Amino acid sequence: MVGALDALFKPRSVALVGASANPSKLGNVVLRNLLHGRFKIYPVNPRESEILGLPCYRSVLDIEGPVDLALVSVPAQSALAPVRECVKKGVDVAIVTSSGFRESGPAGAELERSLVEAVQGSKTRLLGPNTMGVFVPSRRLDTLLIPKDKSRRPRRGGIAMLSQSGAISVSFLERAAASGLGVSACVGLGNKADIEENNLIEYLGDDPATRCIALYLESFADGAGFLTAAGRISADKPIVLLKAGRTAAGSHAASSHTGAIASSSDALIDDVLRQAGVARAYDEEELIDIAKALSLTGSIRGDRICVVASAGGYGVVAADYVESKERGAGLRMAQLSPETRSELEKVIPEFSSTSNPVDLTAGVTDAMYDAVLGLLQRDPGVDGIMMSLELQPPNVTSKLVEITERRAISEGAPIVVSAFGGERTSALIRVLERRGVLAYPTIWRAVRALQALAERGAYLKRRKTRSEDPR
Amino acid sequence: MVGALDALFKPRSVALVGASANPSKLGNVVLRNLLHGRFKIYPVNPRESEILGLPCYRSVLDIEGPVDLALVSVPAQSALAPVRECVKKGVDVAIVTSSGFRESGPAGAELERSLVEAVQGSKTRLLGPNTMGVFVPSRRLDTLLIPKDKSRRPRRGGIAMLSQSGAISVSFLERAAASGLGVSACVGLGNKADIEENNLIEYLGDDPATRCIALYLESFADGAGFLTAAGRISADKPIVLLKAGRTAAGSHAASSHTGAIASSSDALIDDVLRQAGVARAYDEEELIDIAKALSLTGSIRGDRICVVASAGGYGVVAADYVESKERGAGLRMAQLSPETRSELEKVIPEFSSTSNPVDLTAGVTDAMYDAVLGLLQRDPGVDGIMMSLELQPPNVTSKLVEITERRAISEGAPIVVSAFGGERTSALIRVLERRGVLAYPTIWRAVRALQALAERGAYLKRRKTRSEDPR
Repeated sequence: MVGALDALFKPRSVALVGASANPSKLGNVVLRNLLHGRFKIYPVNPRESEILGLPCYRSVLDIEGPVDLALVSVPAQSALAPVRECVKKGVDVAIVTSSGFRESGPAGAELERSLVEAVQGSKTRLLGPNTMGVFVPSRRLDTLLIPKDKSRRPRRGGIAMLSQSGAISVSFLERAAASGLGVSACVGLGNKADIEENNLIEYLGDDPATRCIALYLESFADGAGFLTAAGRISADKPIVLLKAGRTAAGSHAASSHTGAIASSSDALIDDVLRQAGVARAYDEEELIDIAKALSLTGSIRGDRICVVASAGGYGVVAADYVESKERGAGLRMAQLSPETRSELEKVIPEFSSTSNPVDLTAGVTDAMYDAVLGLLQRDPGVDGIMMSLELQPPNVTSKLVEITERRAISEGAPIVVSAFGGERTSALIRVLERRGVLAYPTIWRAVRALQALAERGAYLKRRKTRSEDPR
Repeated sequence: MVGALDALFKPRSVALVGASANPSKLGNVVLRNLLHGRFKIYPVNPRESEILGLPCYRSVLDIEGPVDLALVSVPAQSALAPVRECVKKGVDVAIVTSSGFRESGPAGAELERSLVEAVQGSKTRLLGPNTMGVFVPSRRLDTLLIPKDKSRRPRRGGIAMLSQSGAISVSFLERAAASGLGVSACVGLGNKADIEENNLIEYLGDDPATRCIALYLESFADGAGFLTAAGRISADKPIVLLKAGRTAAGSHAASSHTGAIASSSDALIDDVLRQAGVARAYDEEELIDIAKALSLTGSIRGDRICVVASAGGYGVVAADYVESKERGAGLRMAQLSPETRSELEKVIPEFSSTSNPVDLTAGVTDAMYDAVLGLLQRDPGVDGIMMSLELQPPNVTSKLVEITERRAISEGAPIVVSAFGGERTSALIRVLERRGVLAYPTIWRAVRALQALAERGAYLKRRKTRSEDPR
């Protein structure tokens, strides 16, 4: 499978069956997205001789050179013949993008079976049907069905995204682009008639560009296989999963979306995922929030959090979220050492609190933030720092961005920033994000990130203990 | 008290003790914020004869005319004398902004007691100390301690905000401004040495401009009084409360922030609030999200939600959140009537689902959204509609904004929009918000809004039944 998947992630040649000269057609949008790729591109359409300056082929069989990847972008009813031709041509991977297969009822399921039969026993593997295809920025490979001006793509980076929903992967990419987060690859799984998540997880496990894997799944192709694949990889690369269809209503909805079939109970899934070291997200925002934390910061060594804020109210809300098990992260508020507290007393305002949360009050200055973060990072009783950043205090300047960046990348307890407010605050978060500082627009999302980092730390510790245990 | 509070919300004259000619001083910032108010303004500072073109007074006692409201903006240690002068002058309300009182320890608590003693038995009421003061856009009354260019203020509207944290109220105002939400008043409660939340709730209950009250509290000044006040008002005006300090760590933090003392258990609070018809928020974002829903849409009549999406994946995530009691809203997915389903079949694409969630697929058009929303709004089995809006499908245009707006204000089940994505999606949400459409950037926040609306509907129904019940 790995050989075939190389063709999916780094093809040298791509054919587009259903290429169109009409700018309003999907077959034209996709061709334009492919044009700047680092591979040969062959448009296929029996009714055209040239599209966008490229010679057009009647069929993949008419292409002289080898074809690593073929995109079959024709209606469901017409997809079988070109897939058969792909098999005959010896194409490594055929991606069928159209819907109207298993998710649409018995007739579509029959069509899907015929696609699978067509590739069975051949060297050709099938991605989809019912998928947006693949996006690999390092190769400029972009088969997504949406023009770039309608949906921004992110830069190259360490997060791989696998998704059973095209829309969720596209909005994931948009959010990543907006946050300056980089992506190694994004693959739409569609109906998973052949290639499924486990094949891809195994492949990405060995991909040096991928540091973290984010998954949106409505069903497991093979639950045991997933746990094996995830368990093998998650020692090196964190995995975060949004498993939708966790209620009766959701799993009913999933069956008409991607033909997914409900599996085990949700609580059981929870338990098993934890054992395999897979972080769990419950929605589209948490998925990218956690992927961001795991790819940028990795883990924290324990669950003792120190909160620092210039606004006492945010300190209180943060403390509640750190500690509460029911509505919160179930972490612990760190006990600061007597040394840290007496050092804090020297730098923070007179009426401020040196216990946790550390309250810097509206009298805060840039230098105070710098000194306090440094002291907290060095306290051995602090595993992670949650910094609630407010722009309103009069002596806070734009230098705080550099200070926060320097502290965030320095030795000592990792820092997660939270900043809630209007447009100026949103702009601050974007600046911090682009500098690689873990920053979120609400207290809860920052605490949730710390929770994911603490769980990752605990998992890595368990794993180390197990491998050192002689029994 | 109501007479005095008139002076807080609609003063005819305002004195600023601690007015400063130095633009970097707080006493100058506040004076500039006050300059355009619909009231007389008297700067007080014994060392100046004129500030910003206004004659300056040595003391409030030197002011010839009556003073309704006095802002005492001097350090804690110097606050007592001017407060005593306010009493002597017969000022209705004195606001003490500085910190360094009860929240800072025994000496500060002693100072605070002396302030309270100074006003006791007089006509003068005290707001604070340790408060940002008051913001009333209809009177252009703005005592907030932050320049307008550092923190945008919202327009005039129906939400009143009372807060025991200055920073949380300021960021609430910034978020309201960014969303085009209007505010009737915002009051910083500070240490609540005299005027407390119940006085203000009673007052705002009779204020025709206020349609909804949002509260951030770290403690209840008088729990029984709160329930009485809230219960009386919440039949007409919804109340939403963020009660911080719900854990041991949070309530410890609250004690050093505003000197709040932990009261009852959190579960008890939950129960009692529900009986009084008070919605509960758990953080700064939920507080404004719920206030927005309650002030714009009021309530929905039941808990049967229909989800409509062009992206199947979002339909699945939404269905999970609607139904799940553990991690979700615990509402019900509506059963569409056979009539609705057969009408839907005529307008939505062939492979789409006519059950709930209704899946419009990427083939969705503006007209399809319009027709589908109309059908769902008329189905008697649908109490609320959650519309997941995606901008990526090729036939979705900017006309969808007007269609959504028209449907949202028409008869039939209310609509809540969710749209997750990058910059274009954020811009769409801002446009919808400014047109008064309830819109949120994630599935969960939209479903959470529907939950608040359903709880409000259930409360109003219970209340009606009780009042009709002859027993």
